[in-house]
Amino acid sequence: MGLLGASGYGGGELLRLLKAHPGVELVGFSSRKHQGKPLAAAWPQLWDERPFASQEEVLERSEVVFLALPNGLAMEIAPRALAMGKRVIDLSGDFRLPPGVYEAWYGIPHQSPTLYREAIYGLPELHREEIREARLVANPGCYVTAATLALAPLAAAGALKGAFVVGLSGVSGAGREGEGTFYAEVNENLKPYRVGGTHRHIPEMERNLGRLLAQGRPVRTHGEAGEVRLAFTPHLVPMTRGILVTAEAEVEGDWRQEVLDELYGDFYAREPFVRVLREALPETKGTYGSNRVDLKPLYEARTGRVLVFAALDNLVKGMAGQAVQNLNLMMGFPEETALPKEGLWP
Amino acid sequence: MGLLGASGYGGGELLRLLKAHPGVELVGFSSRKHQGKPLAAAWPQLWDERPFASQEEVLERSEVVFLALPNGLAMEIAPRALAMGKRVIDLSGDFRLPPGVYEAWYGIPHQSPTLYREAIYGLPELHREEIREARLVANPGCYVTAATLALAPLAAAGALKGAFVVGLSGVSGAGREGEGTFYAEVNENLKPYRVGGTHRHIPEMERNLGRLLAQGRPVRTHGEAGEVRLAFTPHLVPMTRGILVTAEAEVEGDWRQEVLDELYGDFYAREPFVRVLREALPETKGTYGSNRVDLKPLYEARTGRVLVFAALDNLVKGMAGQAVQNLNLMMGFPEETALPKEGLWP
Amino acid sequence: MGLLGASGYGGGELLRLLKAHPGVELVGFSSRKHQGKPLAAAWPQLWDERPFASQEEVLERSEVVFLALPNGLAMEIAPRALAMGKRVIDLSGDFRLPPGVYEAWYGIPHQSPTLYREAIYGLPELHREEIREARLVANPGCYVTAATLALAPLAAAGALKGAFVVGLSGVSGAGREGEGTFYAEVNENLKPYRVGGTHRHIPEMERNLGRLLAQGRPVRTHGEAGEVRLAFTPHLVPMTRGILVTAEAEVEGDWRQEVLDELYGDFYAREPFVRVLREALPETKGTYGSNRVDLKPLYEARTGRVLVFAALDNLVKGMAGQAVQNLNLMMGFPEETALPKEGLWP
Amino acid sequence: MGLLGASGYGGGELLRLLKAHPGVELVGFSSRKHQGKPLAAAWPQLWDERPFASQEEVLERSEVVFLALPNGLAMEIAPRALAMGKRVIDLSGDFRLPPGVYEAWYGIPHQSPTLYREAIYGLPELHREEIREARLVANPGCYVTAATLALAPLAAAGALKGAFVVGLSGVSGAGREGEGTFYAEVNENLKPYRVGGTHRHIPEMERNLGRLLAQGRPVRTHGEAGEVRLAFTPHLVPMTRGILVTAEAEVEGDWRQEVLDELYGDFYAREPFVRVLREALPETKGTYGSNRVDLKPLYEARTGRVLVFAALDNLVKGMAGQAVQNLNLMMGFPEETALPKEGLWP
Repeated sequence: MGLLGASGYGGGELLRLLKAHPGVELVGFSSRKHQGKPLAAAWPQLWDERPFASQEEVLERSEVVFLALPNGLAMEIAPRALAMGKRVIDLSGDFRLPPGVYEAWYGIPHQSPTLYREAIYGLPELHREEIREARLVANPGCYVTAATLALAPLAAAGALKGAFVVGLSGVSGAGREGEGTFYAEVNENLKPYRVGGTHRHIPEMERNLGRLLAQGRPVRTHGEAGEVRLAFTPHLVPMTRGILVTAEAEVEGDWRQEVLDELYGDFYAREPFVRVLREALPETKGTYGSNRVDLKPLYEARTGRVLVFAALDNLVKGMAGQAVQNLNLMMGFPEETALPKEGLWP
Repeated sequence: MGLLGASGYGGGELLRLLKAHPGVELVGFSSRKHQGKPLAAAWPQLWDERPFASQEEVLERSEVVFLALPNGLAMEIAPRALAMGKRVIDLSGDFRLPPGVYEAWYGIPHQSPTLYREAIYGLPELHREEIREARLVANPGCYVTAATLALAPLAAAGALKGAFVVGLSGVSGAGREGEGTFYAEVNENLKPYRVGGTHRHIPEMERNLGRLLAQGRPVRTHGEAGEVRLAFTPHLVPMTRGILVTAEAEVEGDWRQEVLDELYGDFYAREPFVRVLREALPETKGTYGSNRVDLKPLYEARTGRVLVFAALDNLVKGMAGQAVQNLNLMMGFPEETALPKEGLWP
Repeated sequence: MGLLGASGYGGGELLRLLKAHPGVELVGFSSRKHQGKPLAAAWPQLWDERPFASQEEVLERSEVVFLALPNGLAMEIAPRALAMGKRVIDLSGDFRLPPGVYEAWYGIPHQSPTLYREAIYGLPELHREEIREARLVANPGCYVTAATLALAPLAAAGALKGAFVVGLSGVSGAGREGEGTFYAEVNENLKPYRVGGTHRHIPEMERNLGRLLAQGRPVRTHGEAGEVRLAFTPHLVPMTRGILVTAEAEVEGDWRQEVLDELYGDFYAREPFVRVLREALPETKGTYGSNRVDLKPLYEARTGRVLVFAALDNLVKGMAGQAVQNLNLMMGFPEETALPKEGLWP
Repeated sequence: MGLLGASGYGGGELLRLLKAHPGVELVGFSSRKHQGKPLAAAWPQLWDERPFASQEEVLERSEVVFLALPNGLAMEIAPRALAMGKRVIDLSGDFRLPPGVYEAWYGIPHQSPTLYREAIYGLPELHREEIREARLVANPGCYVTAATLALAPLAAAGALKGAFVVGLSGVSGAGREGEGTFYAEVNENLKPYRVGGTHRHIPEMERNLGRLLAQGRPVRTHGEAGEVRLAFTPHLVPMTRGILVTAEAEVEGDWRQEVLDELYGDFYAREPFVRVLREALPETKGTYGSNRVDLKPLYEARTGRVLVFAALDNLVKGMAGQAVQNLNLMMGFPEETALPKEGLWP
């Protein structure tokens, strides 16, 4: 396996996970900033003196290549990699949305619009079978993974009318030198950002849930999509890792707690990385360092709405772990290989 | 002035503020745990060797007495203090709700039900004139202050139908040795708690907004109250101070951003401690150590709802600062005396 | 393997590591507080519904038993376990010091003084061969592991005369409900504690280094010990995991940076979990979740002293990881089994 | 008063303190980055729409001007300000050391070497009388203030031979966008930096203590200085505010705890902002937001050394508060004006 973009947080987590993967040989990793330097110079947690290679070297040596690059680069590199016979797992937003929607929300002209039709949406809980055969996987990010898994059972049951989704994210979600993430400005602080329906991940969440609403299960990436309207309000929380999504769903029909529990329990019954809690509420620390999502649906009698909480580690299930899960599916490894279901505490 | 309950966080902040108040002589403070010991033994930030006195001593010496005690104690002490001719500012929940509602939500039989009719609700922005004359003030807490001020203009305009209110609180809100607040369990963690319409502050928020809906302005504590139904979902955030409330309001009528801005701007135009932001979004750190609330209403075109953000320091405007603001009104001091409008950064 | 004391932080980390160990079957774990309840009820990070057993059940089923209990209990349980033919790895202080020294520093009468003579000190970097054959291993803690490894090369070279050792510890070192570790009291705070030569780990550090001074290498637990006098000043730092030790060593002879680098490089050349840094300085986050220690010796020309920095994860190399490393040695597994050398970042 | 450099953390604290100062009119403040914009655009905690002015405007309007600028700028601006008849309080390092020493440690050629002879060292506890008359005050920083006050009584008593000084600093000490201070890199991390006798504040500490050693008290900025050799090892701690200095002093003569307590108690008996603790140990949070220093000397019988701990708020007593203390002396205001002796907790 190879990795382009090995100096960002997603890349760092991929290195950690891939190095411990028994079926994988890490044949190369690149970073423009660190090319030629040893890995340990960029990453204090890694004890590895192998040098960062060039993108070309990595592409040549790899069977599957992970792209952990800023938005707008994968659309240039993926066609080349595919032409070389490689398979690609892209962690950016480039192949997650139809090119027109992408351009409207990202403000970047799409360089490979036809390739989108081949890209498979890399959320294993919904697209497992498609992913096994994929040449190009668009790996979803943290907020979208959490919000989609939180509301998927309601959508697949045809009951989801809309939702007020509050996102709460640790700082690592903004990247290694994310704007506005200096310690003294973030610590002991809490703030909303990109509010009012402007966050780029909204169309992706709506599309995922709309597909479930229209298709039920199984869901196909390029199948029909219904319409779900979400309000999404993200907040920055003074912690490093972890995402919590709190969603208040407007639902059709009468619901009770037992029915909800059964719906969620059944929907995720065979999922290796989704736990539906019975008593406890999800907390982000419970997923720290693991590829697990903790979910809890809750019927709120006073308002007739359904509250759903979802917690995950934004750098694992929300990024690098999900990419390895996709790799496992693509390569025929057991899906859980090298992916912890249990995290560190405290 | 005197203070009963001087060893909790509310009491500690009151000591800090009262010691710097030019019109106040702090004649006594009590804490069962620390009686006889010097103040500095309980509080590392205070340079003061005066001893904690007994409750009796404090009551005798004081003209106005602050009660910063656990729920259920003020209802026993307040009648005694009033009978001694003292005026009382109570920071607990004992006199904020009609006794029947109180008993239902707090599970504590009310010892002084008739006294409730005399208690004035201590939110200066709504009840300023009543507070000036009050003998007994029920000082509201952090979540309620934030949620009420966030939605009050919509309620007073008759436009508020309901709201999904997400509360995000620093750990000091749970008190000095709050259950489940050990550092290693809270740090790098984020979790919902008392969800599903079970939090005690819900009826108080609904009542405050219901009164505005029914009475418009001015609002009277014991006047008519309409019905507003809120979903309230509190979360514990890994920081010490600060509350952020994010409310999605369902509103009647057509709204645009300019109209909202004008509504909020006018409503709080003469308030010394409420800032309605034009460009920026509220962040808790901006209010750290101050008695200010920062608000921002936002019309969300995609959903037709109104988002409102409110940030404050839970120990100042959400507790001790508000109590001093009430004191200033009761004693005829300028309302801003000893209350910073600007906080510490970073 | 079995574990007594599965509800503390050391126990939690042992569960995490042992569950992922390919050579180990976890046959039982106990906690007085949680007996009969499922594991997941005590640990949000674990997805495991097996119940906590009784101490008796665990002892009976296990071949090797880990004791992660408060000081004073292992000395009662270990003799019984050994009599049942089990091997024991004790994470407490009970068998780390000669009974007389133990009693003087811990204030607990020793129940098994003769057993001490059989206990092997479980620091693999110094006592690897002894550990392989041990029936009873006394697993050292975080401060002692860091300080000993930081100064061992100087001591073994006969050059160490004394040192001023500053310990800086995250909060998890104080245990799951450690005294004085409420979030709001610890966050944004930094303080020394147990200063002035009163910390229990001092005699253990001095003894470890004294043995090296007297014996050189190899070191034997029950061999001769010379005298090294340390000043040790621990501090509590607002973070969850991680220990940093900063030691200023008074040394005999003339030293230069190159000689120091060579001394440390040679001493730890074959150690799987000790990295001697060339350029960078140790930082605790670099070892987060791993069993690695990062070291850096530095010759300070202005004072003629040698500064040494050591960083490790107090719950892994400073506790549970070290215990698993000892297990691997005792059972003939490869020493690195189930022990990550690389941590999580960020 | 006027302020150049109003957008850094030192400038922000000065604004907060000066705005609350009853004897001061803040006539102007500048920031190249924000010129023309309102204050609130740069500072979320300030509720103030006055615009940032130009340096010229501020200089013209002010009687006393604070310079809170990067090193190397005050030496250009101070001569101009003095020539205009203004008095200057400089928060940079430009006038704290003899020009030759400055150039060696800061690597910046000094533009106003003769002016140094007129500059008064702005540590009120040592130079109070000189400061009253000064035209130009060199305001010392956080580490130096803490280390100097920690060891001053021993130096003035002629007993200080040398010390191993460990500095532990919150992140705000590195400035508003300090290198290497992104949240995710600093949180849950602890690391030494600029070690091995390379930190710029070493010569200043040695000089302060050397003057006390040579002159006893009173000390004069430009008087004789003896030699004290310090090892200084700073560390970055994951918190925003606060400095703790832990110093192990090598001392002449026999010491006991009572004698130490008396020495420190007498030395600081009349100081409004220095508290010598009897029982407790200093902790940074105890000084949060205040201009107080907490000290504790401790005789360590095992080693015959004297340990001293000093805690302060690096942005107040370590920067802006000290500058206001100097202003009060220069202008004849009571020294404590607008400077809290007690901080916020928690």
